[in-house]
Amino acid sequence: MSERESRILGIDPGSQVTGFGVVERVDGHVVHVAHGTIRSRAEGSTAGRLGDLYRTLCEVIEAHRPEVACVEQIFVSRSARSALILGQARGVALAALGASGLSVFEYAPTRIKQSVTGNGRAAKAQVQREVRRRLGLGVTPATDAADALAAAICHAQAGRIADVGIRTRARPRGRARSPVVRVRRAP
Amino acid sequence: MSERESRILGIDPGSQVTGFGVVERVDGHVVHVAHGTIRSRAEGSTAGRLGDLYRTLCEVIEAHRPEVACVEQIFVSRSARSALILGQARGVALAALGASGLSVFEYAPTRIKQSVTGNGRAAKAQVQREVRRRLGLGVTPATDAADALAAAICHAQAGRIADVGIRTRARPRGRARSPVVRVRRAP
Repeated sequence: MSERESRILGIDPGSQVTGFGVVERVDGHVVHVAHGTIRSRAEGSTAGRLGDLYRTLCEVIEAHRPEVACVEQIFVSRSARSALILGQARGVALAALGASGLSVFEYAPTRIKQSVTGNGRAAKAQVQREVRRRLGLGVTPATDAADALAAAICHAQAGRIADVGIRTRARPRGRARSPVVRVRRAP
Repeated sequence: MSERESRILGIDPGSQVTGFGVVERVDGHVVHVAHGTIRSRAEGSTAGRLGDLYRTLCEVIEAHRPEVACVEQIFVSRSARSALILGQARGVALAALGASGLSVFEYAPTRIKQSVTGNGRAAKAQVQREVRRRLGLGVTPATDAADALAAAICHAQAGRIADVGIRTRARPRGRARSPVVRVRRAP
């Protein structure tokens, strides 16, 4: 990881709650910048809620200006139905990161837990405690925010060793590249 | 369906190709406005491609200014893995529609096929042919665009009978409503 990629945004997307966490690498240490949760309002349509999620994530990116982002890899073990629902929120999060020109790194859940707690099978509460301790937080972060911070910590530490996980680099900021769009209009 | 909801955008989201189709109800007839496909570039990251899809769909909405949108309901029958991948693209499409303040209607695939071909189990080629014939198109639309047009035609016809499918109304345009965001920053 280069010095220019020192501010890291971790995202834990969910259909109800999406967690985010921002950390920075300063002199080899991982320093807390911000974290939080985005909770969908209960009322309204799925489309409206996903649109809100996209815009709110863009605001988070704009507010904290991270150089890179990371999310947990998904190993689908539940039903296809829940995979579709989770996929919708995850797609929106990835789109917001991609549209902002961020490089997105993905890490296996076990890798993230291992990185933060030393145990790849750690329980959620243990991840929350270790994230709080490692970042010197005054309060324990909510589970979704803790997972997002854990992903960011994992990436911050990945720079110290050769392996940097699966790297899926988005286009550099500012360079235009569009999908192929074919349109036919009424004559 | 009110007269103010006469321009309809149908979307058929996919991880590789997303189809769209715009029709209008004029004097009880369904008239073609435009259709097309958005094909993701092969290179680049998932996040970058989903970001491109979001922005391109926003451009399509901006160009054609539909009053309502519709998509096919998903009945997940394939693997959880493919449901996750499809869900990501679908989430991005719904987010773009929702962020644009559009009401989004969902229809079962059998309902759409029935509406366009008279056969709820029609093959894709039959849907393409019927869409071409019904809208008087000079060429047969690509399958993804035909499916999107079929969804739009289905909605245009739904207004003639009482049943208008599952209606998931997004917030009215211009009215602000935000998700609950909790942020903790470093002191």
